[in-house]
Amino acid sequence: MATNTTPTAEIIAIGTELLLGDVVNSNAAWISNELADLGIAVYHHSTVGDNPARIGEVVHTALTRPNNPANILIFTGGLGPTADDLTVATLAKHFGEAMTSDPASEAAIKAFFIARGMTHSPSNLKQALRPQSAKAITNPIGTAPGIAWDVTQHCSHPAFICCYPGVPKELKAMWAEGTEQLLAWIDTYNMPRPAMARTFLHFFGIGESKIGELLADMMDSANPTVAPYVGRAEVRLRVAAQAPSLEDANALIDPVRQTIIERLAPYYVGEGEAFPVEERVADLLKTSQHTIAVAESCTGGLVSSRLTDIAGSSVYTTLNMVAYSNATKTSHLGVPATLIETEDAVSAAVAKAMADGIRGKTGSHISLALTGIAGPDGGSDDKPVGLVWLGLATPHGTWAKQVQVNPKHKRPEVKFWFSQYALHWVREYLQHPAEFSEKQAAPEHSLA
Amino acid sequence: MATNTTPTAEIIAIGTELLLGDVVNSNAAWISNELADLGIAVYHHSTVGDNPARIGEVVHTALTRPNNPANILIFTGGLGPTADDLTVATLAKHFGEAMTSDPASEAAIKAFFIARGMTHSPSNLKQALRPQSAKAITNPIGTAPGIAWDVTQHCSHPAFICCYPGVPKELKAMWAEGTEQLLAWIDTYNMPRPAMARTFLHFFGIGESKIGELLADMMDSANPTVAPYVGRAEVRLRVAAQAPSLEDANALIDPVRQTIIERLAPYYVGEGEAFPVEERVADLLKTSQHTIAVAESCTGGLVSSRLTDIAGSSVYTTLNMVAYSNATKTSHLGVPATLIETEDAVSAAVAKAMADGIRGKTGSHISLALTGIAGPDGGSDDKPVGLVWLGLATPHGTWAKQVQVNPKHKRPEVKFWFSQYALHWVREYLQHPAEFSEKQAAPEHSLA
Repeated sequence: MATNTTPTAEIIAIGTELLLGDVVNSNAAWISNELADLGIAVYHHSTVGDNPARIGEVVHTALTRPNNPANILIFTGGLGPTADDLTVATLAKHFGEAMTSDPASEAAIKAFFIARGMTHSPSNLKQALRPQSAKAITNPIGTAPGIAWDVTQHCSHPAFICCYPGVPKELKAMWAEGTEQLLAWIDTYNMPRPAMARTFLHFFGIGESKIGELLADMMDSANPTVAPYVGRAEVRLRVAAQAPSLEDANALIDPVRQTIIERLAPYYVGEGEAFPVEERVADLLKTSQHTIAVAESCTGGLVSSRLTDIAGSSVYTTLNMVAYSNATKTSHLGVPATLIETEDAVSAAVAKAMADGIRGKTGSHISLALTGIAGPDGGSDDKPVGLVWLGLATPHGTWAKQVQVNPKHKRPEVKFWFSQYALHWVREYLQHPAEFSEKQAAPEHSLA
Repeated sequence: MATNTTPTAEIIAIGTELLLGDVVNSNAAWISNELADLGIAVYHHSTVGDNPARIGEVVHTALTRPNNPANILIFTGGLGPTADDLTVATLAKHFGEAMTSDPASEAAIKAFFIARGMTHSPSNLKQALRPQSAKAITNPIGTAPGIAWDVTQHCSHPAFICCYPGVPKELKAMWAEGTEQLLAWIDTYNMPRPAMARTFLHFFGIGESKIGELLADMMDSANPTVAPYVGRAEVRLRVAAQAPSLEDANALIDPVRQTIIERLAPYYVGEGEAFPVEERVADLLKTSQHTIAVAESCTGGLVSSRLTDIAGSSVYTTLNMVAYSNATKTSHLGVPATLIETEDAVSAAVAKAMADGIRGKTGSHISLALTGIAGPDGGSDDKPVGLVWLGLATPHGTWAKQVQVNPKHKRPEVKFWFSQYALHWVREYLQHPAEFSEKQAAPEHSLA
């Protein structure tokens, strides 16, 4: 019998809300990415509603496609407590296996509600049901356990099923446990899995198209591949290679990574899956035992909030202020009212005075200030929406810097770009304080 | 011959980048939403790579499914100029029709490059090719025209194909022209297209499973449908109905909407596609001409930032403070140091003192304070991670309220839940100040 002997997955999303367009199927991309890392091929994504007949049909199609049929089915969605959540029951029926309540899942669901001072409902206990020969995947943050299930006995060829909730956070929290079972199953059939090495390089202050031009010679390469992704106020490059061993795969990406970092050196900020600049700033503050204080106007507390998104932020921050009105800039940050009148609230002088003010008030090593026009109203020819003045006060001196971001962004996005420029500016200072302070001689203009 | 006589679409996305997870298939949701509004049913989404054999297979499957086969196929992706863009050529071959160059498309492509001072390449002219009996869909912002194609002559039942580029902006710009052709085709077969009415109801302070129980009698209804979606720290219900006319469809959802709002009254927050609570609070503040001030500890400025995400927030906010350390709670908010010592920084007394402090300092009508444990460290048996005390100072009195959110959330998510509870609490006050202040007699405990 001809069977597919390389691990090949189809991702099947279940949910009428997806077919109605009320929810974007971001899980398919996330799972695909994870499977690529595991050396598991994906040739199809499918989405189908909460309907037993159509779900059964999609399962049959996935396992019997003439070209590249799947031997691994990854389901997301339809594990909830309500009547229209019927993924697991439908699969059990499709493969002709009875359902049983998983004792650990049942206990976890009860504990989930007890911990919240609530009582579970009968519909919640429905979530503890699994096909008899399946294993449950623990859900550490919700009530719906997943399913890891070898269905080979019910098929004409080896096949494995994983079911995850549709809530992305829960899927991600459960992925490792389900994957462990999946990989163990793949190993029992000695299916080959090429090793995948990949890394993400992060850049700030340069656009995707410019990166494309500077790296044009690398963009067509098949192995390793170099692909840019536009994130939120950053660009990252994915460098990935496949090889029989992880060592070989890493050897393929290493020289490419080096070349990229050298070629884009002025914009390079770091390496890693995610690279939130607030995390980098927090690390630098902790290492240098520096404290920081923030005085915000247009960003309204966003910079302060991002700096306190990091665990242990109390070692480097004690007091931040959102001085939204001109009067409070004077009364609480000591910015002279005449300065605001003569220079305007959005100006280098006021940004510097705000930074000096909060630094003096808190006795912090360094301080950051932001004053700008987040829009959509309040802009002028002279001071358009998207313009911000940043102030930075340090033991080496106090500086101001003007940044203009795309005024077509929505207001919360403009605020985010402002905070991103401010945090990157602090990062640059903390990485090399002496060099940084020399560089501040010339005024700088940036664009996003 | 049994054919599907209601317009039923399958959305087929083409692109290896989707299967690698490098791009999220947001087009499928967007198209689904548009088709729902047109009264065209969607039972399946499929994604397949740039591979002729697999594309042909997916087309065959879509048109011949035992349950709810499609008679309309909407393709996105694979219309680009490079060798791996082969959607149209593959479809022409699949249905056995020769390709021809579309004169208008060819002229548009040449003009596109001339307008940019560039010359087109031969691969660009490949994009002007269409099956002989198809019509081109103009692309006003890119080089890839779309295809609108009645393939009934090649099928055993009426069938229509639309092809759009994968770039969301181009798809959206071309949608109207393609849809015009599609609807004309549907009309030639007198296929019925029901009108669709829908609304979204938003709830806070109640989980999806509890809503499912309270509305169990409605969840199985086929028309109107009632479906819960879990958002970020909220649950929304979609109520949708189909009927021959929009008036009839609205008449179907109206009584259901009323019943739901009555039955879930304590948790109901509003109606609309999106319903950010900060927007509602901002509206209430503006209408009542009230000002607000915020004193934050654990949320680090997030509440302040959310309140200033709304355009025109300067009319209701002047100064907010992030008093992260105990010392600054005393020095800047006037919380007595002895109170923090005897009651703990995370306590009803300190939350109230913080709210009173910032209200006194700013002269705002109302003020909000938050002090809690955002984690992952710093929790105890007595005061676990996820515990927050909210303080609210108003002309009617000052109150404190304790909330415990899921301690397994990541720190930024815990902060978001805290801010969500705080903003909803303010919303409740602003909606009915007098009733609210009476209700505060008994201490309240909430869970998320």
